[in-house]
Amino acid sequence: MRKTTRRNDPQGLRSRILDVAATLFQARGYKATSMQELQQAISVSGGALHHHFPTKKSLALAVFQERVAPAVRAAWIEPVRSSPSFGEGVSTAFARIIEGIEQRGTVTGCPLNNLALELALSDATLRDAAGAIFAEWQKALAERLETTRGGHALSPPACAQAATFIVAAYSGAMAIAKAEQHPRPLRETSDALQSWLRERELDC
Amino acid sequence: MRKTTRRNDPQGLRSRILDVAATLFQARGYKATSMQELQQAISVSGGALHHHFPTKKSLALAVFQERVAPAVRAAWIEPVRSSPSFGEGVSTAFARIIEGIEQRGTVTGCPLNNLALELALSDATLRDAAGAIFAEWQKALAERLETTRGGHALSPPACAQAATFIVAAYSGAMAIAKAEQHPRPLRETSDALQSWLRERELDC
Repeated sequence: MRKTTRRNDPQGLRSRILDVAATLFQARGYKATSMQELQQAISVSGGALHHHFPTKKSLALAVFQERVAPAVRAAWIEPVRSSPSFGEGVSTAFARIIEGIEQRGTVTGCPLNNLALELALSDATLRDAAGAIFAEWQKALAERLETTRGGHALSPPACAQAATFIVAAYSGAMAIAKAEQHPRPLRETSDALQSWLRERELDC
Repeated sequence: MRKTTRRNDPQGLRSRILDVAATLFQARGYKATSMQELQQAISVSGGALHHHFPTKKSLALAVFQERVAPAVRAAWIEPVRSSPSFGEGVSTAFARIIEGIEQRGTVTGCPLNNLALELALSDATLRDAAGAIFAEWQKALAERLETTRGGHALSPPACAQAATFIVAAYSGAMAIAKAEQHPRPLRETSDALQSWLRERELDC
């Protein structure tokens, strides 16, 4: 019965393929994960997998757009938009990510940075997909920065630069944290960014 | 004749293997590069390759220690140690890296960050090798920071935190630059770090 239900639920299957692919691409890398391994991990026929994603590249593109982009929105854009102040938004984003690492006991890294670094040179379409998510992330931060006390006095390009600096500091801290398998660099970078924001009255 | 010379020059061959492996691991990734492809790219027999590096992992470890570590020393540690001021050291490191990108017309990314993100979860020995280079890089910056005007007033752990922040901001800026295939994030992060250092009198 369960099998029949699944067969009649193509969107559910598509979603399950994306979940497993996102997890494996993140844990092992895109190139190190074969379509056959994915098929086995999902317990799906080659035909069904290929029906939803005719090529591995089409699957990677969907992972960027439907898994990585929402992950960045949930981890960064949502807390920054919904927090009473920009400073709190940034510290909430860091705190939740650090909490997740402590609960899992392992640093898997930022899904966007992991895949972007692996794929940026090998495929222009996938690089553009990664670039678009970095752009959305920086834009959301820049727009929120413009509403802060210090941001009012800055030009939009200066707010955009500040947003890039924050995304860069976080991304690099996560890379070091992954190499050290410890959240220390994230904690220290979060603290350094808080002072930096406060000094510029970009925190609220 | 040339072949004979090469046969009699095992260190030259070892060095050539490391050069090609470092380049391919950087361009395509470690997992996506097979020992057979390496063999072909170097024009070397499987026996000679395996004589120097019995396993792909032993080759990766040597690439970390003998190619990636020296690249980080040349790009970051040397300019920071030899510049008249810490601020100049940091801006020289960024400027040379940006110049290299402009000359090549492509952003290949930081060899340490690329390989660290790919391998940190799959192999503890290689993760430790990456972690050791990040540690050496942060330590060199922290030691130099302690000699600055602002650094005199800071505790060694505070200087270490400042060093982590700089390495993080650079590493993340390079990741965004790779995704955008443009040096903009590096330039903006370099400027932001210069102000940050000046404000703390950590620049000289």
